[in-house]
Amino acid sequence: MRAYDLIKKKRDGGVLAPEELRFLAVGAANGEVADEQLAAFLMAVFFRGLDGERELPAFLEAMLHSGRVLDLSHIPGSKVDKHSTGGVGDKISLPLAPLVAACGVRVPMVSGRGLGHTGGTLDKLESIPGFQVVLPLARFVELVEKVGACLIGQTEEIAPADRKLYALRDATATVESIPLIASSILSKKLAEGIDALVLDVKVGRGAFMKSLAQARALARTMVDLCGALGRGCSALLTAMDEPLGEAVGNAVEVAESVDILRGKGPEDVRELTLLLGIEMLLAGQAAKTGVEAREKLRNALADGSALRKFAEIVEAQGGDVRCLDDPGRLPQPRLRREIRARRSGFLVSLDAEQVGLAAVELGAGRARKEDRVDFAAGLLLRRRKGDEVRAGDPLAELHAASESRLDAGAARFAAAARIGDGPPARSALLLDRVTA
Amino acid sequence: MRAYDLIKKKRDGGVLAPEELRFLAVGAANGEVADEQLAAFLMAVFFRGLDGERELPAFLEAMLHSGRVLDLSHIPGSKVDKHSTGGVGDKISLPLAPLVAACGVRVPMVSGRGLGHTGGTLDKLESIPGFQVVLPLARFVELVEKVGACLIGQTEEIAPADRKLYALRDATATVESIPLIASSILSKKLAEGIDALVLDVKVGRGAFMKSLAQARALARTMVDLCGALGRGCSALLTAMDEPLGEAVGNAVEVAESVDILRGKGPEDVRELTLLLGIEMLLAGQAAKTGVEAREKLRNALADGSALRKFAEIVEAQGGDVRCLDDPGRLPQPRLRREIRARRSGFLVSLDAEQVGLAAVELGAGRARKEDRVDFAAGLLLRRRKGDEVRAGDPLAELHAASESRLDAGAARFAAAARIGDGPPARSALLLDRVTA
Repeated sequence: MRAYDLIKKKRDGGVLAPEELRFLAVGAANGEVADEQLAAFLMAVFFRGLDGERELPAFLEAMLHSGRVLDLSHIPGSKVDKHSTGGVGDKISLPLAPLVAACGVRVPMVSGRGLGHTGGTLDKLESIPGFQVVLPLARFVELVEKVGACLIGQTEEIAPADRKLYALRDATATVESIPLIASSILSKKLAEGIDALVLDVKVGRGAFMKSLAQARALARTMVDLCGALGRGCSALLTAMDEPLGEAVGNAVEVAESVDILRGKGPEDVRELTLLLGIEMLLAGQAAKTGVEAREKLRNALADGSALRKFAEIVEAQGGDVRCLDDPGRLPQPRLRREIRARRSGFLVSLDAEQVGLAAVELGAGRARKEDRVDFAAGLLLRRRKGDEVRAGDPLAELHAASESRLDAGAARFAAAARIGDGPPARSALLLDRVTA
Repeated sequence: MRAYDLIKKKRDGGVLAPEELRFLAVGAANGEVADEQLAAFLMAVFFRGLDGERELPAFLEAMLHSGRVLDLSHIPGSKVDKHSTGGVGDKISLPLAPLVAACGVRVPMVSGRGLGHTGGTLDKLESIPGFQVVLPLARFVELVEKVGACLIGQTEEIAPADRKLYALRDATATVESIPLIASSILSKKLAEGIDALVLDVKVGRGAFMKSLAQARALARTMVDLCGALGRGCSALLTAMDEPLGEAVGNAVEVAESVDILRGKGPEDVRELTLLLGIEMLLAGQAAKTGVEAREKLRNALADGSALRKFAEIVEAQGGDVRCLDDPGRLPQPRLRREIRARRSGFLVSLDAEQVGLAAVELGAGRARKEDRVDFAAGLLLRRRKGDEVRAGDPLAELHAASESRLDAGAARFAAAARIGDGPPARSALLLDRVTA
């Protein structure tokens, strides 16, 4: 088999056979197919797609089995993970994993880092002093069994084909392809040995998918693909025009997550945590109906068991558990600056992408992959979309290590916030649900 | 400027600016744009094309100036070259260059090697003992001035951007793209410092372009592109369903070329040599009309000046000029085998691609770039398309170094020749002409 012929077949709109897709995935993992050939294949897929029934399942299977696939079958009960396509202020994994684990569903979670305007779960967790996101897979499996949840980063052993292809897509403008996105995400997630996956597909100007139609297509592809591989999957399509919650950054998002686990915190974060939690309990057969699932989740928040589970996780992964009671122990910024409204009116919009970029300017994110993150940097929103404001009212508090970073962050934030004369239309958080 | 953004722009159907195309061509030549990014760009161009007015001239200019561009302006008179898109038995450059030079038009010719079923001018020339196709560019310029023609191979100094991009296209199934073909050919040809170029665009089952429409589009693109860069260009579209002439190989094609220069040889080879010669004399202002040009060319054949010019070229480039009078001095095959007709009837078709592949099996060509060529190998057609044959009549004589090669060549040849009951329709050699 020659990579040339496979590229040509896909280029000309042909359907690749399972062994041909395996040849490419294995060749990506072991370096036997040259980078330039993989890049040409990826661009051909960008234009021609991959057939959802005949090609994608085989391609995903090959990507998945290019590395280690965990077997958690010895652990009793269902193992369910959640994946978000990424947003601004999206700290949901932090309260969600312990909450769902407290309700009896095990959560083996492999997460990523922030890039561009979107944050990453790993960076947030690492802002808890001592928290280890790099663990041997054996320890990961052990903690999923003993604690009920474990949150780590992608390892070398998991889906090496995807690691190679993702790096190439990132360099060759072939990221925005639904079959490539779907197979990339699922090759990492299904390697965790989960029974089911819940997807949070973000839609809007702060999301990767700008339109509901695109987001629906991606969700449908992933739900069907999981089905083809015998795993449960459901997807929520949720709004990402405005940031989620009031905190955007790392340490500030940990503090907000703890608030949620205490039954407090912003309404939208709490509601999305519950909505995704309901999906996970249903997928994990820990509840028969959505009503029952919501009740269980509310109880776990009310009785403190979700917060205790988070403390267990933090402790098991080496983090300073005292941060949960005393957020002052989390990294604190050297400088803070309040941004105030220049006029009176209503906060009619707060562009999530611009707010995310403001956080990057402040030091909380990465413009490039190799950038270092300042865990203490970020921002706290003092007003949310729809709020009435008077000139001089605080809109946000910026956290950074230097005045120049505060200046850059403030300039971006100014571009994000728009004050109008009347209140904006209310917008929904949950836009759609896609199931098998 | 980032290659990523340029790939994305092309991927999305945008028009790249001249400086963006220059960035990619320069980056290809000096290695600053990664192979995988160039490959993705090439595949995006395969799908999106390059705008003939806004993109292609700038891209070609950048490819051309990625290396050395000869200046022949000190040499009086017009400098005109010919390029063929490649066929089977296409030895036309060998008689054409001396014939045109004998008529007063200088021919600086940079040619290529054979690959797959098509032969290459360099391999044919090298079958003349001692003939040097690798010369310093200064010597090339000197011989164009003194002798009137010089035939060499592509050097490291000419169009390095194309060398890189061509190697990538060859590995990534992005060869078959009209803007990429046009810019690749012209970046090498225009670097010769020519005033005008005559194209022989082959059409048919033995050619790269299978349909007349494709061939017309390529010819039109190249003629217009030359015009945009201030060079003259005209193209003949000629048939390549059957091999050209009776000899297919290297030494055998040299011998046939000498026959043409003696006013003998197969009718189709002589006619195509004249047709392309007419174009070159007109482009080089050595004749005002086609009739005048044909007359000049016929005279140069009749009075022996064309053959003498070929002898001068061979001598100047180190070749054994005695081969012209005594073809027995050319490499001779160890073994010969006659292929005979199995039935009586008419030779209704002789598939050029299969005949070309038979020559490769015999040792005359390359299946892979790194293969070595046997100059003595090849075949002589004893019957041409349309000829009446009786069972047992010789169809061809195969030349090779071993019985196993003869067996392999004979098997291919059997697949190429088809004998039918009635005579086939006659087909034209010249299919169309494309001018500015």
